[in-house]
Amino acid sequence: MTLEQAINKLNELQAAQHAYGHAMGVLSLDGDTAAPSASARGRSQTMGYLSGVTYQLLVNDEVKEALETILANKEAVTPIQARQAELFKEDYDDSVRIPMAEYVEYSTLINQSNAVWHEAKGKNDYAAFAPYLEKVIAFNRKFAAYKNDKKPAYDVLLDNYEKGASTATLDPFFSLLREKLSPVILAVADKPAPEAGFLSQRFPIADQRIFSDRLMQMMGIPRDRCGIAETEHPFTTNFNKWDVRITTNYSENNVADSMYSVIHEGGHALYELGTADEIQFTSLASGASMGLHESQSRFYENIIGRSLPFCRALLPVMQEIFPAQMKGVTAEGLYAAVNKSQPSLIRTQADELTYGMHIAIRYEMEKLMIGGDVKVDELPQLWNQMYKEYLGVTVPNDREGILQDVHWSGGMIGYFPSYALGSAYGVQMLAAMEKEFDPWADVEKGDLSRVTAWLGEKIHRHGKMLTPPQLLRNAIHTDFDPTCYVNYLTKKFSDLYRL
Amino acid sequence: MTLEQAINKLNELQAAQHAYGHAMGVLSLDGDTAAPSASARGRSQTMGYLSGVTYQLLVNDEVKEALETILANKEAVTPIQARQAELFKEDYDDSVRIPMAEYVEYSTLINQSNAVWHEAKGKNDYAAFAPYLEKVIAFNRKFAAYKNDKKPAYDVLLDNYEKGASTATLDPFFSLLREKLSPVILAVADKPAPEAGFLSQRFPIADQRIFSDRLMQMMGIPRDRCGIAETEHPFTTNFNKWDVRITTNYSENNVADSMYSVIHEGGHALYELGTADEIQFTSLASGASMGLHESQSRFYENIIGRSLPFCRALLPVMQEIFPAQMKGVTAEGLYAAVNKSQPSLIRTQADELTYGMHIAIRYEMEKLMIGGDVKVDELPQLWNQMYKEYLGVTVPNDREGILQDVHWSGGMIGYFPSYALGSAYGVQMLAAMEKEFDPWADVEKGDLSRVTAWLGEKIHRHGKMLTPPQLLRNAIHTDFDPTCYVNYLTKKFSDLYRL
Repeated sequence: MTLEQAINKLNELQAAQHAYGHAMGVLSLDGDTAAPSASARGRSQTMGYLSGVTYQLLVNDEVKEALETILANKEAVTPIQARQAELFKEDYDDSVRIPMAEYVEYSTLINQSNAVWHEAKGKNDYAAFAPYLEKVIAFNRKFAAYKNDKKPAYDVLLDNYEKGASTATLDPFFSLLREKLSPVILAVADKPAPEAGFLSQRFPIADQRIFSDRLMQMMGIPRDRCGIAETEHPFTTNFNKWDVRITTNYSENNVADSMYSVIHEGGHALYELGTADEIQFTSLASGASMGLHESQSRFYENIIGRSLPFCRALLPVMQEIFPAQMKGVTAEGLYAAVNKSQPSLIRTQADELTYGMHIAIRYEMEKLMIGGDVKVDELPQLWNQMYKEYLGVTVPNDREGILQDVHWSGGMIGYFPSYALGSAYGVQMLAAMEKEFDPWADVEKGDLSRVTAWLGEKIHRHGKMLTPPQLLRNAIHTDFDPTCYVNYLTKKFSDLYRL
Repeated sequence: MTLEQAINKLNELQAAQHAYGHAMGVLSLDGDTAAPSASARGRSQTMGYLSGVTYQLLVNDEVKEALETILANKEAVTPIQARQAELFKEDYDDSVRIPMAEYVEYSTLINQSNAVWHEAKGKNDYAAFAPYLEKVIAFNRKFAAYKNDKKPAYDVLLDNYEKGASTATLDPFFSLLREKLSPVILAVADKPAPEAGFLSQRFPIADQRIFSDRLMQMMGIPRDRCGIAETEHPFTTNFNKWDVRITTNYSENNVADSMYSVIHEGGHALYELGTADEIQFTSLASGASMGLHESQSRFYENIIGRSLPFCRALLPVMQEIFPAQMKGVTAEGLYAAVNKSQPSLIRTQADELTYGMHIAIRYEMEKLMIGGDVKVDELPQLWNQMYKEYLGVTVPNDREGILQDVHWSGGMIGYFPSYALGSAYGVQMLAAMEKEFDPWADVEKGDLSRVTAWLGEKIHRHGKMLTPPQLLRNAIHTDFDPTCYVNYLTKKFSDLYRL
């Protein structure tokens, strides 16, 4: 195969994968937003068919030869082509490594496991879910060994979700969090809670929808390129930089729920909306990793969205849309309320200070699960024990305990740490940004354009052209250092709670 | 190729075409409902890619051989397989007949023509659209000749949209409409108009959305299988009987607009929702023709939806949702108001009595256009002259005249007659139904289940298994007879207006 033929094959593969990815993405989004409930059967049939086609398009000898030809001639192709070939080769290797029969068996298991988890959670019935979880763990251990049997399985899984992540960096990271933040969490718990009841009045959903539009406007999200819909769990999905969608979920008795979902998902959206024109309609036009994606979403949600300057900008908007509910509230009162910290049971509702502890617990449990050091039926007890230890809370039932998250039922083991890593990355990005300009004067005016331009230049525009470690270095110009994150949280909550 | 191989190929083709059709259908629906405006570019790229794949899947020698093998052995395959092969062969023949270069040229023209029409309509600038229309007409004439150069081109086009339709049946049909209905239209115009102002008060869109749900409930549309969304122009789309969607468009100052859109599209939806289980996920699971589809939508919209018994069932629902606006309105008053008849400019807003005249005008014009008997720049004058002649109205500008419909800009010449045919079919279906049971006692109670079951048995469940003429015969047990339609309209409007 000549290099020219190889490049043609790459372009062909790229166009095909993009079209199929786009179609399946819209089918899935429609399924989560607008489709009637009985439509699942037809959708799963079509998705199954299209996934099969994309698999066959990637996994064949001609593609293999084309990718190898390009990778052997990297200097003779464009950087975009080289990077595309590199990532396709990774996908190819991941795909051929697992025998087809096992892959099909695993896909079926995941579908069942997900459905069983959903029902088990509703019925608070861990025992029903346990046998599925056991199989999911076994498969993940086996697949990790297929990929690299020299490394501990959990390290392989961590690296799947965040290139470069391993227990060697995460052990000290989570130890530090626990060591330094536990005393802060305890001290905060001894202080009187700030007044936050005004956020839990009745906020009509029609008004909250208007508020979402205003929040997206404050974030500088171009609405001709980004839609918003409503789903049970908020998420972001992207097809290209001219077509990104976020979703939220409205709770009539809690305005902060959807507000911070919109800001969080808006952060994910800004990442996708900011990818460079020249990589659109290719596999490179998307965020580089889970950890980097969370660094952006949690940057906007917490570092910006839960800052005093942002609360100053937010208050008049809220008072305009919710005059009765927000009457008499000050910016300082709003700031205190949205940062009310309290050890709690549910990760997705955790505040910024205690969030890392929820992740640390999952990290420790996953290490034990994959390491084979704990039996599946012992997991709930372990979970409850760790919640007591790390957060001082008593888990009343498995629904609010080990069954709360969807991830494990979907086979995502090794994914949780990227949430905490993202939060920590964001704090170092803030430090780097502050060396170049003062973002807070802008934020106080509700103007996030310079902040987004800075992140756009350092992170967003590159898509997957750079690796996650390269991108992080590009933004922070130094090594990853979790003490920054710990110091940031300690200072913020010490000030807030006058510790 | 053995018959077994041919059947495998057919099944493969069927699964592929269904999956691609489903994906493209959802992409298109999303584009019309939820997608941000700048998403069009990416969507058109993906749609172009997927259409190319479906073309190649159909148009190749292996498929040709498989279809011919099956069609030569019809007695040895199932009726479903035979019918699938028959319809695929028609698609195949239609596809290979047009040289690829001309097909691509035409597709590009249609895209441009549609965009130019949209702008020309906005600016009331027929001259800008005329050169595109001229090319569209020329292409349609040429494509008709490719299909059959023994028949007049317009007959070929009519047959494309409604199998069996031709000027031989449509000339007397439209002559009869004009001859018999013109005096009724004139007589109605001389009578005082019924009071209908109550329908044009302010009806908040949030309440109209609730009303749509109630209407769908009255129609017996299962909401776990049918969604509703909002678009500029209402339409129905279907993926399988477990996933049908209708759309509507709300006008705050006119409750009847969306109400009759929902009932009309609901009629289309009931057709698709009623197709048999055994033809799902195949090309047979859809309405048999445009004319039959319109027979269902217009049956629910006009014959049922604009009847006095239905108004009796509707009134309490409207009074519950719109108590202030509907205060003091009687069922008879509602019936008179929703049947207010008046010669008008815009087809889509025409009442049941005058609607056929709008179609007759388009039919006569299309005959002349395709016959080459009129120049493109003479069309607006001809349009205006015919509106004066047929309906007695003066067309003030091309935007409300010849530029009002999207069809011609999209290459759909020969499509309009199916609207009128559908209306006429529906009246004969009512007559056949009334021979078996009295639908009106049910309708007055707001119960359409027996009506839908009857139509389901005669029409819906068959999908495309039968040809349109077979289906019509199956429902009405007699020949098509447009005098039934004329008599129905004459009686209804003579009674309403006490002629």
